[in-house]
Amino acid sequence: MLNIGIVGGTGYTGVELLRLLARHPAARLKAITSRKEAGLPVADMFPSLRKAVDLAFSTPEDAALDKCDVVFFATPHGVAMDMGPALVGAGVKIIDLAADFRLRDTAVFEKWYKMPHSAVALLEESVYGLPEVNRAAIRSARVIGLPGCYPTSVQLGFKPALEQGLIDASHLIADCKSGVSGAGRKAEVGILHAEAADNFKAYGVAGHRHHPEIVQGLARMTSAPVGLVFTPHLTPMIRGIHATLYARITKEADFQEVYEKAYAGEPFVDVMPPGSTPDTRSVRGANTCRIAVHRVGAGDTLMILSVIDNLTKGAAGQAVQVMNIMAGLPESTGLESVGLVP
Amino acid sequence: MLNIGIVGGTGYTGVELLRLLARHPAARLKAITSRKEAGLPVADMFPSLRKAVDLAFSTPEDAALDKCDVVFFATPHGVAMDMGPALVGAGVKIIDLAADFRLRDTAVFEKWYKMPHSAVALLEESVYGLPEVNRAAIRSARVIGLPGCYPTSVQLGFKPALEQGLIDASHLIADCKSGVSGAGRKAEVGILHAEAADNFKAYGVAGHRHHPEIVQGLARMTSAPVGLVFTPHLTPMIRGIHATLYARITKEADFQEVYEKAYAGEPFVDVMPPGSTPDTRSVRGANTCRIAVHRVGAGDTLMILSVIDNLTKGAAGQAVQVMNIMAGLPESTGLESVGLVP
Amino acid sequence: MLNIGIVGGTGYTGVELLRLLARHPAARLKAITSRKEAGLPVADMFPSLRKAVDLAFSTPEDAALDKCDVVFFATPHGVAMDMGPALVGAGVKIIDLAADFRLRDTAVFEKWYKMPHSAVALLEESVYGLPEVNRAAIRSARVIGLPGCYPTSVQLGFKPALEQGLIDASHLIADCKSGVSGAGRKAEVGILHAEAADNFKAYGVAGHRHHPEIVQGLARMTSAPVGLVFTPHLTPMIRGIHATLYARITKEADFQEVYEKAYAGEPFVDVMPPGSTPDTRSVRGANTCRIAVHRVGAGDTLMILSVIDNLTKGAAGQAVQVMNIMAGLPESTGLESVGLVP
Amino acid sequence: MLNIGIVGGTGYTGVELLRLLARHPAARLKAITSRKEAGLPVADMFPSLRKAVDLAFSTPEDAALDKCDVVFFATPHGVAMDMGPALVGAGVKIIDLAADFRLRDTAVFEKWYKMPHSAVALLEESVYGLPEVNRAAIRSARVIGLPGCYPTSVQLGFKPALEQGLIDASHLIADCKSGVSGAGRKAEVGILHAEAADNFKAYGVAGHRHHPEIVQGLARMTSAPVGLVFTPHLTPMIRGIHATLYARITKEADFQEVYEKAYAGEPFVDVMPPGSTPDTRSVRGANTCRIAVHRVGAGDTLMILSVIDNLTKGAAGQAVQVMNIMAGLPESTGLESVGLVP
Repeated sequence: MLNIGIVGGTGYTGVELLRLLARHPAARLKAITSRKEAGLPVADMFPSLRKAVDLAFSTPEDAALDKCDVVFFATPHGVAMDMGPALVGAGVKIIDLAADFRLRDTAVFEKWYKMPHSAVALLEESVYGLPEVNRAAIRSARVIGLPGCYPTSVQLGFKPALEQGLIDASHLIADCKSGVSGAGRKAEVGILHAEAADNFKAYGVAGHRHHPEIVQGLARMTSAPVGLVFTPHLTPMIRGIHATLYARITKEADFQEVYEKAYAGEPFVDVMPPGSTPDTRSVRGANTCRIAVHRVGAGDTLMILSVIDNLTKGAAGQAVQVMNIMAGLPESTGLESVGLVP
Repeated sequence: MLNIGIVGGTGYTGVELLRLLARHPAARLKAITSRKEAGLPVADMFPSLRKAVDLAFSTPEDAALDKCDVVFFATPHGVAMDMGPALVGAGVKIIDLAADFRLRDTAVFEKWYKMPHSAVALLEESVYGLPEVNRAAIRSARVIGLPGCYPTSVQLGFKPALEQGLIDASHLIADCKSGVSGAGRKAEVGILHAEAADNFKAYGVAGHRHHPEIVQGLARMTSAPVGLVFTPHLTPMIRGIHATLYARITKEADFQEVYEKAYAGEPFVDVMPPGSTPDTRSVRGANTCRIAVHRVGAGDTLMILSVIDNLTKGAAGQAVQVMNIMAGLPESTGLESVGLVP
Repeated sequence: MLNIGIVGGTGYTGVELLRLLARHPAARLKAITSRKEAGLPVADMFPSLRKAVDLAFSTPEDAALDKCDVVFFATPHGVAMDMGPALVGAGVKIIDLAADFRLRDTAVFEKWYKMPHSAVALLEESVYGLPEVNRAAIRSARVIGLPGCYPTSVQLGFKPALEQGLIDASHLIADCKSGVSGAGRKAEVGILHAEAADNFKAYGVAGHRHHPEIVQGLARMTSAPVGLVFTPHLTPMIRGIHATLYARITKEADFQEVYEKAYAGEPFVDVMPPGSTPDTRSVRGANTCRIAVHRVGAGDTLMILSVIDNLTKGAAGQAVQVMNIMAGLPESTGLESVGLVP
Repeated sequence: MLNIGIVGGTGYTGVELLRLLARHPAARLKAITSRKEAGLPVADMFPSLRKAVDLAFSTPEDAALDKCDVVFFATPHGVAMDMGPALVGAGVKIIDLAADFRLRDTAVFEKWYKMPHSAVALLEESVYGLPEVNRAAIRSARVIGLPGCYPTSVQLGFKPALEQGLIDASHLIADCKSGVSGAGRKAEVGILHAEAADNFKAYGVAGHRHHPEIVQGLARMTSAPVGLVFTPHLTPMIRGIHATLYARITKEADFQEVYEKAYAGEPFVDVMPPGSTPDTRSVRGANTCRIAVHRVGAGDTLMILSVIDNLTKGAAGQAVQVMNIMAGLPESTGLESVGLVP
């Protein structure tokens, strides 16, 4: 049984971690921290957790996190790199759902996240927690930088074609649509129901923090220089990311077969039959990425459709998947639930 | 291991049954029938079930339902009473999610459902499948008439106050709001997204089929004559029922305590702390009914708020709960998942 | 041509006023104030107003409001009573969309709004701006306290039955459902899209500021003591209020006829045919209140369904209607547009 | 005063036409036909039109359409080409909102719409009703084929760059997202609220009827061969299209200036300031196309964001704009209303 700590349990990735871990057969929740809410029973903030999670929020000081086997950071950027070194020193494995251990280049990190990196040594040993790319390294890691939601959907979508050199890496387009929970549980006018419902818009067009992360990931898949146009859009749904990916074909192949083979053994990637158009609800609350591959247009464009639940495969579910790998558990433990449809 | 058949698996209660049973540790799906879709893999219709349900739809003739231990009817009204007698004769237990075995009085049934009742003997032995009211009878039943969604939320809401004679049974008001999935997976203009989204309306004001069912249920809880105003409304969400119940208090009591005691041992009824206002999402995909009790207004009105997921505790989840009871399994088996929030 | 000032144009009632007044043939927008946004073109905040409103926000000091004919307050509570006396002294007519001039009893105001009333003399001469109740007084008023959104829908719904003494005034129930824009354009977690979408809940059950306002209004319609249970609910739509009203009938009447006669000459109240269930979208963006009257249940309950757009007839549209009356214009001027369906 | 007939007034483009024409100062509605609903008052089907439209549906035979000045076809494809010749012969101008007069090449029409073209002569004299492209021809036309909704947003988005030869016409991408009303007011399971809400998906990937129409339109803007990838997606909103357009830049220019100049005199195209991301709600119910131009990614990609309301500028509003042009009225007559925000 793994003893689990969660730092920062009041956001959407936090409550999703709690939803999954509360029913995980090999995990025991020991502490959930929130300085602001210390003392408040977690289920008072999230009544969905009544009868499932008995803990109250505690301060980080009271949480005895160094006695845990695994600590998840569901915090703003910057917290994990501050608290991480001491925990790792105490033998705790840490999984950061924020960005502190995603970008290898601290200059890039500092440019996009507007803070110096305070744990460079830990960053150097950290592993990017995308199992379909990095499973072996995850197995023995002590520190995980978990991918962002967009980067998960885009990297899984491009991976087979890029690794096999079938597309022009220099002009990739990722037209992505996200549900509003992707913006977090923050009091901001732009994501109010009365603003975001029945409305559609692009945002972050001039530059989004996930752009360098995606480029870094794609660059590992090819020796060619990577050029990416990444356009995020806000779509009026709660959960879900739909990535529509475009690339120019440079080498002919049976793309359906390429994708099916590439993901044949993966428990959480589902390559759909030819002609399919995956919908985000088919993965609502599930840890699955569904992909469909299409040959379209003038004949030399490859289009890949890739959907995930941004809070599950795009965050908390992937975190549990990574924890399972690190702990030597069957990778699907606690992640078997089916998408909630309708 | 229970062998399970489902008659009519193409609607919303059908897919919800499949979602739950696919992960139920003591159930094995043997057949799902749909005359219209026979031969089609179930997961082709509902891609959320890919890798979880391997079966294809079959015709009722090919389904070998009489070899099952339990058969669920997720069909239009009238099917279970036609197929039920032969199955029960073959030793199969049946659970009807439609209305064939809900109403004791066949004249009332025939008035509201516009068809003669074709299985009166089976109706007589059938048990109304609301565990919190009828657990003992369910345990030994062969035929279950599962409650409707509104009736579940309203009966659980009124039960403690009514059974203890604390409210005026002759002037009850149930102002109910349902998500659109309650109308079923039917091609109808009125429940299109472009009609039902961003819109709110009452319907069925002149008379709704759940009215006689609720009155029948409430009448078992009191010796006084029951008078009920029941107003269903359509609210722009997918799942969820919110029942706002009003009654005149006739006898003083500590209502909070009355409700907490009444439901103290119930795994799926959660009486919330004083002052709470349960939200439907807290039970999204979960088999829970959350209730809050309020003393309001001029001083002699009791208001009860009762929420369920219409497809789970209001249909398929309750069906699995009933199956567990009938099979002697722990009542929560396969029903432990937490509400999907956000 | 009326010269118009708007104090506080950054909220939802503000932008709705701008939408209506930008196309009003007898109104000329002169100033829109926002201390925080001073200098920003209004259309930069609300691109829907590009090419329709050229003004920039200004500070109240720069706005020359005392040169306007009419000034609307679309502000938080407390602003109109501070700025009102000087403006009225300068000959300006003021219409407050907040609560400063709604409640006649300052003790009640201070209890619910947690601030002393600073303009008691102005309050005394002020007129409650519900045209269907108060048209004559509005005509000659200098200061208007515009009704809240819930109070508009509930008062119009009960008025005919209550004025004619047909229902028991001591036990009225108003079960009301509001779209999320009713909570305002404020950065609050509870009204985020990811919280409020696909969700339904009651709120303010222990006491809502509109309760004393509604009771005050209903008390003018009857000599009997008024008892009201008022339950507001949040429903996942942007605009719209649906009030479901219940009362015990004390005197028989042809209720349909009573309502049709009562509202026969009203341009903005539509009594629908018997059996109707008005939907909120039918008044989306329109200044109409639609009402349907039903005889239900045990036989002695009257149910009235009343729908408005909370931002139009429930706020900015009613404000323009009142302005038209005060200015001697045809009451529908600038308010003719049809509900946006779908 | 123009006498107006509408053939097929029961769909979404029909009710939108009625909403606009009911308040058009120079139009008088004379007849609305629906064989199925003949005799039913229009406002019984669409209560939003109560007090605004007094007509009942009539059969085409009873409608005296040949006495109208203008007849709009808001019908399924194929009706206008059957009824058109006789009407035009009688001196009536016709505006078809369906596809009968959109495609110049009858072979292409027959391939995509699966019916022979029955009015080739009329097709030859017909004019494609996109005012920003074709204003002069519209002025003197007798027969208008009104553009589809996607084609309006995509053509207006690409036009300036394409006409000036600044982008590679052979590899254009139009990633488009539509609200559900775009699918029409048809009883189909896939567009039910419980299917389409809180969900996002691509569709029509293998081929969509608007593809040949868009290509035909783009080909008029350039002498280079046009290659287009067009991906429509269904987004959970009622109204609105958001087109995200990508093209490789072949010739440097100040794209912002190019677009501003190109649309400088257009009443219904709004080129937003640099860095903008238009949202669909800013044009909800308005006849406006808002466009933003972005230089993104590797440096040689031009991205254009183009939003319209699919029922207004994408259908009925554009139809009224065209009618105004044909009748010599100011082009904005009856189309001044501001987008409904929130």
